[in-house]
Amino acid sequence: MAAPAPAHQRLGDHLHQTRLWGSISSALYYDQNTVMPPAGAPWRGDQLALLAKQLHERQSSAAYADLLAEAEAELDGASAPEAVHNLQLLRQELRRQQALDPDLVAALAQAQSSGNARWQDARRQDDFASFAPALERLIQLRRQQASQLASAEPVQRSPWEILAQPYEPAISKTRLEDLFTPLKAQLPALLEQVRATSTPHPAAIDLPEALQEQLCSELLNRWGYDPAHCQRSRSAHPFSCTVGPQDFRITTRVVPGQPFSAFLATAHEWGHSLYEQGLPRSGDHYFPWPLGDATSMGVHESQSLFWECRVARGEAFAGRWYPRFRSGLADDPWGEPQRFWRALNPLQPGLIRVEADELSYCLHIVLRYELELALIEGDLPVAELPGEWNQRMRSLLGLVPPSDREGCLQDIHWAEGLFGYFPSYALGHLISAQLAEAMERQLGPIEQRVAEADEASLRGWLAGQVWPLGHRVNGEELVQQVCGERLSAAPFLRYLEAKLARLQAI
Amino acid sequence: MAAPAPAHQRLGDHLHQTRLWGSISSALYYDQNTVMPPAGAPWRGDQLALLAKQLHERQSSAAYADLLAEAEAELDGASAPEAVHNLQLLRQELRRQQALDPDLVAALAQAQSSGNARWQDARRQDDFASFAPALERLIQLRRQQASQLASAEPVQRSPWEILAQPYEPAISKTRLEDLFTPLKAQLPALLEQVRATSTPHPAAIDLPEALQEQLCSELLNRWGYDPAHCQRSRSAHPFSCTVGPQDFRITTRVVPGQPFSAFLATAHEWGHSLYEQGLPRSGDHYFPWPLGDATSMGVHESQSLFWECRVARGEAFAGRWYPRFRSGLADDPWGEPQRFWRALNPLQPGLIRVEADELSYCLHIVLRYELELALIEGDLPVAELPGEWNQRMRSLLGLVPPSDREGCLQDIHWAEGLFGYFPSYALGHLISAQLAEAMERQLGPIEQRVAEADEASLRGWLAGQVWPLGHRVNGEELVQQVCGERLSAAPFLRYLEAKLARLQAI
Repeated sequence: MAAPAPAHQRLGDHLHQTRLWGSISSALYYDQNTVMPPAGAPWRGDQLALLAKQLHERQSSAAYADLLAEAEAELDGASAPEAVHNLQLLRQELRRQQALDPDLVAALAQAQSSGNARWQDARRQDDFASFAPALERLIQLRRQQASQLASAEPVQRSPWEILAQPYEPAISKTRLEDLFTPLKAQLPALLEQVRATSTPHPAAIDLPEALQEQLCSELLNRWGYDPAHCQRSRSAHPFSCTVGPQDFRITTRVVPGQPFSAFLATAHEWGHSLYEQGLPRSGDHYFPWPLGDATSMGVHESQSLFWECRVARGEAFAGRWYPRFRSGLADDPWGEPQRFWRALNPLQPGLIRVEADELSYCLHIVLRYELELALIEGDLPVAELPGEWNQRMRSLLGLVPPSDREGCLQDIHWAEGLFGYFPSYALGHLISAQLAEAMERQLGPIEQRVAEADEASLRGWLAGQVWPLGHRVNGEELVQQVCGERLSAAPFLRYLEAKLARLQAI
Repeated sequence: MAAPAPAHQRLGDHLHQTRLWGSISSALYYDQNTVMPPAGAPWRGDQLALLAKQLHERQSSAAYADLLAEAEAELDGASAPEAVHNLQLLRQELRRQQALDPDLVAALAQAQSSGNARWQDARRQDDFASFAPALERLIQLRRQQASQLASAEPVQRSPWEILAQPYEPAISKTRLEDLFTPLKAQLPALLEQVRATSTPHPAAIDLPEALQEQLCSELLNRWGYDPAHCQRSRSAHPFSCTVGPQDFRITTRVVPGQPFSAFLATAHEWGHSLYEQGLPRSGDHYFPWPLGDATSMGVHESQSLFWECRVARGEAFAGRWYPRFRSGLADDPWGEPQRFWRALNPLQPGLIRVEADELSYCLHIVLRYELELALIEGDLPVAELPGEWNQRMRSLLGLVPPSDREGCLQDIHWAEGLFGYFPSYALGHLISAQLAEAMERQLGPIEQRVAEADEASLRGWLAGQVWPLGHRVNGEELVQQVCGERLSAAPFLRYLEAKLARLQAI
């Protein structure tokens, strides 16, 4: 009789199948958001719930735990450090799964689903009070979850920190305080500077839909889109998703009156996709193993923001694309490349996070982060959330929402119990700016490369320095390794000040 | 403690989940054929294989067998006849699953996959000899399968008949002989009549793609397409598929030079979809149970052929749509409605089944059916298949293929071991014609209804008489019940003779 395969190999096979199940969900999600007719939703919900159950069972079963233990027992001094690291990451995740009471898992899934439904109604009717009980329940369950998970954490962490781990491994409140304090200190002054000189919001411009589609395709073709591995579709909200190790999807939408929305969203989602495409997946070695994963939401967001803000909203890029945009309109609403560039960068603080400009975006995040701490770890009663939100909006952005719909009811995250997620968006801006400085030390000015239509060298740098790191390092370690310095807010603030100065000189 | 739910209810839950798994495969199939980038194929293959394994385990597990036995034990004199019938159908299917040696199932799956690959190569290189060993292996395995299944059949059946059961329940060679003999006797004479007077094949006409898309949408909108429940996409080969009880998809394609291809394929696939949409699925009662299924491939095909051939290729319909088609061309290649109608019905026997006209189509099927009998039950050696094919083509259609690529290598069915499938295509033509006669007895001439743009009443008739029968009756019983007479070839031959006379009078 042949000897059984080494446990490491059997574990790899197990993880491969786990990935297959997970990627079936991704394919269904993509279908749901691009072509599924609305009446298909309840059945699709049942399909996804069935897959989630199957996946959870695989990831927490006794058989899997035994297999992992066998693979750990096989390790010896000669084992590759990556094999050791993979097993550590799997053990950490299993420890988390095992620390959770299955009843709590079920209660949370239920509360998330009903929280979402309550929130949809409350937002439509601008009625926070009708959503408050669902939010209270979610906070209570997530506190319980953090308390159950505490025993599985390798170091002492606060409840909020524990909840943030899946999005941003190793993040701490102390580090966020370090990073966010300079933003809170300096962004309001920059905003004040803009407010003093800003031009009125531009009128709606209806760039023909066919031209917008064509511009998106041209952009992707120039940036390495390969139809053998990629697919772009339409959806109500743009997103990027990976359906298999060689199957990458992004979606965009054309918004009436907004000539840049589809184009910039394409740049953004393509940035996410390029990162996924560049993760270490050579052969069968990495894809099923955790080291082949994206390391954090913050790093993921840094990649999308690099291509959207740093490249596509940059001056050189605007100069190159201005004639293509203008060609679709009978009257040129911009008149010259520099005004076209300014139109790509409307600097005007507003109430809504997803529409915020680069200057005010991080303040929206700081507000949410501090409120999460008050809700999860502090003593802020849910009933006082709207008032607290509005007061902080006034203090940070100088604006007061006329309704909760434009205030604390605007985001879906809390309605699904996602606490600990928001800071990753701000970290994405910081990481992008710091990586860009490191890139410029090696390649010279990014704007120069873009002016020469040489985005390929920027992509090549990321493909060499950033993407192959996978999950071997967390977001902070990635910045330290690639940039040779600790993550900080300074590069982002420098970038904004320089950009603002140039925009205001027009 | 509460009493356990009745076994019937638990069985329904089990079947519901089985349907969820099956429909996940359908969604992946749709994605694969509409948007998946080519490099995604190997991973998609792994996903589908995993789902197939999961599905097979559910359908043949001891737990399922026990549950079915429990539900059967619960039956008593007061049980609804439909509940009894559902359990009979499930028992019959389980008996088949259990009769099969799992090693044979695995060997067949393997042989089908490699048969397909060999066939692709052989067809490309027009090299039947390189495909012959794979075909021999498939025939041998399917003979074994028939022999294992024989014990599970409720009546004595020949090997070919056993293999045909999944497509056409209760079909027999005797009945096919009854039905096909008049076709073999009379179609060649009709073809001769056409050959004597036929006009040359029309030149390629490039109807603008956007107009073709629009015509397809208009057709669907007039024929009850509801975007809340339906979705139409593009694919290389048109198909229809059901992804959930409220989620119906069809696909079409525009073929350069062929102005009617997309339009007629839309009519055809929509016919399949209407049938699926009309199957008895009220509430949760039917969808997971077998009585809610389509009853046979022949009946399914009768529904698509009714809308494609009987309606969309009809004279009244041509008269109504001629101006819309003409509007997209600078020069009108048809000149008048009647010549447009004739262009919609090119009557010219050819070598390729999927391009065949209504007159010669069934002869292509008869040829394949008789060769299948010779391969599965007779003594035709695989090596002699090409010669036998060519000789029969000459005798039935008066044509000899210049290559096996246009001869016995043209279809994928045998390369995947699908023996017993072809006759359903011909049955579809016969059933459609016989249903149409019954419809006309109640509604008056179909052409009159179509001339009045009243396809809704045709749809209403099918929705009332045919679709709700589901799997309660087989194809033959359906015709008997709806038409009050036995299925025969006469209505189809009458229809062809009348159509031919009108076309030749132009």
